[in-house]
Amino acid sequence: MTLFRGLSAFPLTPTDAAGHVEVDALSRVLGRIAAAGADSVGLLGSTGAYAYLTRPERRRAVETAVDCLAGRTPLVVGVGALRTDEAMALARDAEEAGADGLLLAPVSYQSLTEGEVYRLVLDVVEATSLPLCLYNNPGTTRFTFSPALIAELAQVPGVAAVKMPLPADGDFAGEIARLRRMVPPGFVIGHSGDWGATDALLAGSDAWFSVVAGLLPEPALQLTRAAQASEAEEARQIDAAFAPLWSLFRQFGSFRVVYALADTLGLGTFAPPRPLLPLGPEVRARLDEVLDRIAALSPFTPAEGAS
Amino acid sequence: MTLFRGLSAFPLTPTDAAGHVEVDALSRVLGRIAAAGADSVGLLGSTGAYAYLTRPERRRAVETAVDCLAGRTPLVVGVGALRTDEAMALARDAEEAGADGLLLAPVSYQSLTEGEVYRLVLDVVEATSLPLCLYNNPGTTRFTFSPALIAELAQVPGVAAVKMPLPADGDFAGEIARLRRMVPPGFVIGHSGDWGATDALLAGSDAWFSVVAGLLPEPALQLTRAAQASEAEEARQIDAAFAPLWSLFRQFGSFRVVYALADTLGLGTFAPPRPLLPLGPEVRARLDEVLDRIAALSPFTPAEGAS
Repeated sequence: MTLFRGLSAFPLTPTDAAGHVEVDALSRVLGRIAAAGADSVGLLGSTGAYAYLTRPERRRAVETAVDCLAGRTPLVVGVGALRTDEAMALARDAEEAGADGLLLAPVSYQSLTEGEVYRLVLDVVEATSLPLCLYNNPGTTRFTFSPALIAELAQVPGVAAVKMPLPADGDFAGEIARLRRMVPPGFVIGHSGDWGATDALLAGSDAWFSVVAGLLPEPALQLTRAAQASEAEEARQIDAAFAPLWSLFRQFGSFRVVYALADTLGLGTFAPPRPLLPLGPEVRARLDEVLDRIAALSPFTPAEGAS
Repeated sequence: MTLFRGLSAFPLTPTDAAGHVEVDALSRVLGRIAAAGADSVGLLGSTGAYAYLTRPERRRAVETAVDCLAGRTPLVVGVGALRTDEAMALARDAEEAGADGLLLAPVSYQSLTEGEVYRLVLDVVEATSLPLCLYNNPGTTRFTFSPALIAELAQVPGVAAVKMPLPADGDFAGEIARLRRMVPPGFVIGHSGDWGATDALLAGSDAWFSVVAGLLPEPALQLTRAAQASEAEEARQIDAAFAPLWSLFRQFGSFRVVYALADTLGLGTFAPPRPLLPLGPEVRARLDEVLDRIAALSPFTPAEGAS
């Protein structure tokens, strides 16, 4: 299984105020990711606002990505939904539209038990022939996969990867080693949480599920390749250039920041879905500084077709 | 404002496996609440599975309730949604269908700021002429209303009530007194969390937003009236009869338990929306004991039209 490994770039999904996908803007964002050579696109993740979009709009986003990527970059699609039948339908939609893999967030309103999430994963994995990545992100789904549940699900044919949050105690190497002993060889263990990605990759994580790579794929890929080659100094240097951005991510939530960043990059002016509100001009000013710092380290491609 | 005061009964919403409302079963449940004389119905609350139902199905539930209640019992409708435009549309649907009030849960995927929730409430309250109750339940929405935000929103015309969670420190009287000093006279301060309702009402809470009253309205009303009359001994006696049920609520989540309870009462066999799974026979057996205990204390009306 090579899908899910390396740098998976999670773009925002540009929409209008009513939640309709802006196809041209999404294509611009995706074109940059493909041109940079990211290992995959993680469409309709948390950053891609999947939870705020209807099933037809999610399908439109997948179709746009399949057209735009044209096989250049593998496409992973988030199919999380509050209802099992909806998640299964979204998985089928993604497969029909041409996706390469699925990402399943056990999103919840009423808290879910381990048994319920086990059954949910089985139902969704049986709905298509696509490989599936478990989305372990208690911050948004309010469900924490225990190591035992991950190990059990890793035995299910089709369950190929897990997207882990940053370890609370910072012991990346220890956590990865413990998980590796519990899952079959080849099962992908990757991480989200951009500010911990360098530590995760240097500790042997298989993947960086990256928010920033959705908009700044080149420096994110440079960081990934350096860490994969155990060039710790270079990786940490790039990470340091990103540090002011990680600080904004933690202060305002990366979801709000990427909308401001897309605007700053000239990719188009889009607002997060209300009730979330756009960030103010003081954040834009700080983003300009961030981009200067990253550009000084590693020039990146300016937006194509900037508006 | 008398709406929202006293006993507000929150029924489950019976649906088929695809999430279509079972109109006859919902009418049976609502008929019992109206016959018992509850002060209001809280349709499509968390117990009513609002988060798992589509807008057309939510409208169907409201229309069913308006037909069934026929003005006998005021109808409050939950209009929470992840998107502001959806919450506004649901509020308009509820008003058009004949609801008397709204309950707004600031349900979130990405965490919301106080400013975002303030704006959300304003947008929804402006969408209709109905009075609105704020739904403060961090356990399901992941947003906590600060006392300052409640006070600010209580000044907004149309914002008439707040549904509070049980105070973490158990100091009902202190919390109610602090809030009362911050809100206009007549603003309703009520509580959810059935196992704390007796303490809340005896401490002067204006309302019990009650899960159990959705299925056992008579003993819940008896408890409410006793507490409202400061007959603490009688209220605590009824509460003690409910205690094994509160224990099940806390062990399995009240949401799962009400489906088993509806079945035990002969109101129909319905399952919670998947991925949530129905409880097993061992819980049914414990529910039989609970019902015996409550029946011994205070006979309640058997299900009409039981299947």
